[in-house]
Amino acid sequence: MKKTALIMAGGRGERFWPQSRQNMPKQFLSLTDDGKTMIQLTVERIMPMIDIEDIYISTNQDYKELVMEQLPQIPEENILCEPVGRNTAPCIGLGAVHVARRYGDAVMLVLPSDHLIKYNTIFLSTLEDGCQIAEQGPNLVTIGITPDTPETGYGYIKFIPDQLLGRSYRVDRFVEKPDLDTAKEYVASEQYLWNSGMFIWKVSTILENLKEYLPQVYKGLLEIQENIGAENEQQVLEQVFRKFPSESIDYGVMEKAKNIYILTGAFGWDDVGSWLAVGRIRKSNEFGNVITGNTITIDTKNSIIQGGKKLIATIGLQDVIIVDTDDALLICDRDSAGDIKKVLENLKICNRTEYL
Amino acid sequence: MKKTALIMAGGRGERFWPQSRQNMPKQFLSLTDDGKTMIQLTVERIMPMIDIEDIYISTNQDYKELVMEQLPQIPEENILCEPVGRNTAPCIGLGAVHVARRYGDAVMLVLPSDHLIKYNTIFLSTLEDGCQIAEQGPNLVTIGITPDTPETGYGYIKFIPDQLLGRSYRVDRFVEKPDLDTAKEYVASEQYLWNSGMFIWKVSTILENLKEYLPQVYKGLLEIQENIGAENEQQVLEQVFRKFPSESIDYGVMEKAKNIYILTGAFGWDDVGSWLAVGRIRKSNEFGNVITGNTITIDTKNSIIQGGKKLIATIGLQDVIIVDTDDALLICDRDSAGDIKKVLENLKICNRTEYL
Repeated sequence: MKKTALIMAGGRGERFWPQSRQNMPKQFLSLTDDGKTMIQLTVERIMPMIDIEDIYISTNQDYKELVMEQLPQIPEENILCEPVGRNTAPCIGLGAVHVARRYGDAVMLVLPSDHLIKYNTIFLSTLEDGCQIAEQGPNLVTIGITPDTPETGYGYIKFIPDQLLGRSYRVDRFVEKPDLDTAKEYVASEQYLWNSGMFIWKVSTILENLKEYLPQVYKGLLEIQENIGAENEQQVLEQVFRKFPSESIDYGVMEKAKNIYILTGAFGWDDVGSWLAVGRIRKSNEFGNVITGNTITIDTKNSIIQGGKKLIATIGLQDVIIVDTDDALLICDRDSAGDIKKVLENLKICNRTEYL
Repeated sequence: MKKTALIMAGGRGERFWPQSRQNMPKQFLSLTDDGKTMIQLTVERIMPMIDIEDIYISTNQDYKELVMEQLPQIPEENILCEPVGRNTAPCIGLGAVHVARRYGDAVMLVLPSDHLIKYNTIFLSTLEDGCQIAEQGPNLVTIGITPDTPETGYGYIKFIPDQLLGRSYRVDRFVEKPDLDTAKEYVASEQYLWNSGMFIWKVSTILENLKEYLPQVYKGLLEIQENIGAENEQQVLEQVFRKFPSESIDYGVMEKAKNIYILTGAFGWDDVGSWLAVGRIRKSNEFGNVITGNTITIDTKNSIIQGGKKLIATIGLQDVIIVDTDDALLICDRDSAGDIKKVLENLKICNRTEYL
């Protein structure tokens, strides 16, 4: 069966402020040593498996130009612009009807555009395993990551150890981000994996599930599908999409659906959730510093400096994150990286949108 | 007797890098809440006592324009430009012969251009006391500051407690910057004051002393004096000055001279020696931060932020100094403020003079 991929690139991630902005979210940033952006890496990663004309990017109008700039090899008609953000269920549905219109049925990988994978051979073989399971029946396949820590920022997926299909486990249930104690229990139980947000299914399978669990969305999607390529395509998309509820695929479908399977992702996954990730991902120097730009560091340890042309001199610092851009500078203790959102809240309250 | 003042403004202070630069040293910076520059404050301070046309500024050609911009009220002929830096003895000598040429004899205050004084009424009355003593005979008057700490960055002056002249003590000796143990002994002895670098004497007195202790300099100064106002004034100044040894007034004269008196400066003196001084001098907010510019500070305490138009966001910081300029940014732990010189050394070694 034909294999296709939908890469979701509509996110407005704030956690890499001030380098990420509303007009330049994380997926379009280069955060690795190789200079490639997150979305470029995501596409490269699956190219051994999926033909380039079968890779779809879902994003919004604001980012269409960025996608075309960074991924000139992707056909323009594969860049699906959501008229408004309605979370992942309508987003995935839109991708599904585009694939359905073109191929009737096909396998569809759904992938975030802003994660990193260390071992791509393992990643690809995991995806291949997923495709096989997806093709075998009306199966929804997910990829779970074995937790290092009782992370409270991710959803978890409970699997049933003794119910295998191929190399996957049958899923018992999806659970939303837990509190710390619950997360600790999950990890201790050895039966919960992190929800990586990656899915594999046939287009027909996900559409059937949308029909069952989000019938209104399904109906709208059919209307959109009928008008793909028509003169009023855009108009219909706008009208229908705006009426969709904002609903995640996890809550809207996966928490209710049957026949869900989970593959373990042993390929070195990183969701690159904050500036701290840059310290993990990139090569550090002998003092534990990860540095970009024009710097002089004296007695500086274990710090992340992301600068440009301007000279940045640091003296006597430890565990600090410094991010310098043309109009904004962040200086933040490593332990406070999560509080970048407070800066953004402050900016919103003060209506200083130029910095968002 | 006529009172005149020589304000020494040739220093190339590096300790306020990156705001201070070779083309913008500390005396021309505004580091106080009132927005005035150090040299402007220095001139304002003595204006109740000295006529503006009797205030001389000694500097070098590079800074002449800055002086004229910041002190438009000072007559241009009172701006004495040293052709090369030869430390304070030739500098003061040059001022002395200009005053001598104009007034024959006069009292001359010698003042640094980059210190701060809290209580100006006390400062002025101290200077008045000094003028009286200076007028009474061939006396060299200095002003000493009672140490708070065994500071190793200043010279010290030993006074003889029971030998008074007016409100001044007779000076036993001048000593150069001590090591810490010696400084502690000095402070414990209660007989040493910090050398503030401020002097009061008659022009005739200092010239007599130069004649005795630096005869070569004295001879050159006479040659310069003879040519003030002449067509070849500049040429003679250049030729003679270049041949002067580099010699401080402390080492060249004060350590050898007789009839030295010291007044205690109880006027709240600060030599504004590093960015830490800005934390003392300027008003801090409720979190102990002293802030200039466009900032958002979250969980930030006891820090100094000197920025401009660019947004500076800080999170989870304590005891940090941040100085942002157009082409260079300093981020420094408070305890490392003294290590700014290491950055400058690095820049010199790498020949990155654009940042000096």
